[in-house]
Amino acid sequence: MSDFTATKAMFHLPEGVIYLDGNSLGPLPKAAGTMVSDMIEGGWGEMLITGWNKAGWEQLPRQIGDRIARLIGAEPGHVVMGDTLSIKVYQAVASALELNPDRRVVLSDNGNFPSDLYMAQGLLKSLGEDFELRVVDPEAVADHLNEDIAVLMLTEVGYRDGRRHDMAALTERAHATGVLTVWDLAHSAGAIEVDLAGVNADFAVGCTYKYLNGGPGAPAFIYVAPRHAETVRPALSGWLGHEEPFAFDLDYRPGAGIDRMRVGTPPVLAFQPLMAALDIWDMVDMADVRAQSVALCELFIHEVEANCPQVRLGSPRDAAARGSQVSFRFENGFPAMQALIARGVIGDFRAPDTMRFGFTPLYIDRNDVLAAAGVVADVLNNNLWDRQEYKVRSRVT
Amino acid sequence: MSDFTATKAMFHLPEGVIYLDGNSLGPLPKAAGTMVSDMIEGGWGEMLITGWNKAGWEQLPRQIGDRIARLIGAEPGHVVMGDTLSIKVYQAVASALELNPDRRVVLSDNGNFPSDLYMAQGLLKSLGEDFELRVVDPEAVADHLNEDIAVLMLTEVGYRDGRRHDMAALTERAHATGVLTVWDLAHSAGAIEVDLAGVNADFAVGCTYKYLNGGPGAPAFIYVAPRHAETVRPALSGWLGHEEPFAFDLDYRPGAGIDRMRVGTPPVLAFQPLMAALDIWDMVDMADVRAQSVALCELFIHEVEANCPQVRLGSPRDAAARGSQVSFRFENGFPAMQALIARGVIGDFRAPDTMRFGFTPLYIDRNDVLAAAGVVADVLNNNLWDRQEYKVRSRVT
Repeated sequence: MSDFTATKAMFHLPEGVIYLDGNSLGPLPKAAGTMVSDMIEGGWGEMLITGWNKAGWEQLPRQIGDRIARLIGAEPGHVVMGDTLSIKVYQAVASALELNPDRRVVLSDNGNFPSDLYMAQGLLKSLGEDFELRVVDPEAVADHLNEDIAVLMLTEVGYRDGRRHDMAALTERAHATGVLTVWDLAHSAGAIEVDLAGVNADFAVGCTYKYLNGGPGAPAFIYVAPRHAETVRPALSGWLGHEEPFAFDLDYRPGAGIDRMRVGTPPVLAFQPLMAALDIWDMVDMADVRAQSVALCELFIHEVEANCPQVRLGSPRDAAARGSQVSFRFENGFPAMQALIARGVIGDFRAPDTMRFGFTPLYIDRNDVLAAAGVVADVLNNNLWDRQEYKVRSRVT
Repeated sequence: MSDFTATKAMFHLPEGVIYLDGNSLGPLPKAAGTMVSDMIEGGWGEMLITGWNKAGWEQLPRQIGDRIARLIGAEPGHVVMGDTLSIKVYQAVASALELNPDRRVVLSDNGNFPSDLYMAQGLLKSLGEDFELRVVDPEAVADHLNEDIAVLMLTEVGYRDGRRHDMAALTERAHATGVLTVWDLAHSAGAIEVDLAGVNADFAVGCTYKYLNGGPGAPAFIYVAPRHAETVRPALSGWLGHEEPFAFDLDYRPGAGIDRMRVGTPPVLAFQPLMAALDIWDMVDMADVRAQSVALCELFIHEVEANCPQVRLGSPRDAAARGSQVSFRFENGFPAMQALIARGVIGDFRAPDTMRFGFTPLYIDRNDVLAAAGVVADVLNNNLWDRQEYKVRSRVT
């Protein structure tokens, strides 16, 4: 049984804060600072260029990929780190399209994270006018899988409402119509149980700064199913994906398997906090994390609904159809969230009216949930949000 | 006059090491560790998600871009940080190609860094069979500029030999034949004087882990000339390049000017050492850096040639045609470089026979050059490289 008291003690959580926004940016693992310092002072400072070999920096994208593979049910050796999630979405979709060369449509849903849609739009525009991004309601995705579709590009858990797609069923149905799948695990990795190998996913991508707690702007990952790994063309074909990077050949030759999805020089410094976070992940089992996440979400929903008639649940009521977050819709959600943050309950807001709360068993427990729900009730029932200072918006909210 | 004694004191240089590989990975600015710690403990740790606003993380890609703009002669407000250099090459070439829609050829040279060629190959393959990457000798580039060419993609200073293209002349000639230019400044930024605005460059990209000393895998930058900034389509169209990222629209609308070249969530942690390095860059003038770099390179060439008949100069003899590195060719260059490194003189090796030495006035002075040349002479003239342990190769060299 995973010991969540032990994991909670390994995070720095500011005094007076209940942090329910780990679905946006995970908190700081206490060991991160030391790992970063060691890499800076002992690695970069002392080893300089030789650190690529001596400190093993060159191996990190694959080593870290393997540690994440365990959390998402991927076969070892088929996940690699690099770039941002947006870039990895582009790479996965571009690569998948080429494996389905007679088709021209990418299917997605309007609950997908906009950057995924934007990256696909940018790619398809480059590829030509006969390519199309088809965006439908999340509930309608299965019905739109047909012989036109080359690639199904979905985020498993919706960023706004926490709605969860049935990855197994949709992947099976996609394959039955000759469609390849690209799954974005931004709100899945470290949040719910994922079984990429078991569901026969083709490609998957994800970020590491949310539930995985890798830090602001931490690198992304990409998974390619073993059956595609030696045939796929990476589209973004950089030198570290080359079969022999230090031969400095003039022509690209893809590296073996997942190595070919590497692109440029990896962000060694940014890997360090992520490794500190993965040391904590190594202590837990995803089945335990999921069970506790469901319990925390259910408790929060119950408490808020019992006390706050102003809001309505924006997430699926069925836990099995939900990720590890709970959204409540409230017309004054923006100032309400600012008021909550001022009271130390940190969630976030997504336009037009969604208040998001993420539940992360590694460092959030039942007492936190009860306390947070109490603050929500106080803020809403006493209109504490109705102050001008809470209504000022900035570019990043 | 720039004070290079003062700048040298601001870097950590390991005891007993003369570091002539700053053209590959710059050394550690002493202030980097503190800046990183402050961001981790005080920023991420205490501010959590609110750091994007409160700590100004969201503004860093443009703010840092402006500091680099000064070093490369770019107009303020037209450089932005993000991704790796390989990704930025892809974005620049893809964007430039669309601005020249009736042409299908990208022209480059065989002295370019292979990743640039690979990224272009990957892009052009995606775009279709009528697109072509034409690779010629560096000396022949000007003669191959004609009405077929859409984009001229060059690295100003060659990674292997330090050969420098005439950016002004080639850009002018490119424009005269309707060709757009993409300049890779990997070995230029912080190495030589660059005047992007003055030469009318169209696009430029570069990394920050070499002469700029941003740390292993530090983020890249991209420049788009003001005349293209409001019309270019970024090709890699991510949410942070959107006009209104937090509106979460389903359709991409490019942000104003250089903001549209942003893609995913920026690497906040990795920016910190770069900012420490830029504090040092703020103390110097690039004209002084260039003058001192030429003096150091000339001194090293003179000393090595006077004492080591085994090697021949692999870089241009004319300082004006050279960047800030000196290459010597030697058939036993690989073990010789290993022997030099064992003696504390760190340069690097590029296949098949090139020993590279980078000269970086911020932390290398005349005494370093004389001492290094002495070690080179000792290693070569006494065959100290002829040991088995120096002949073992690894993936990264």
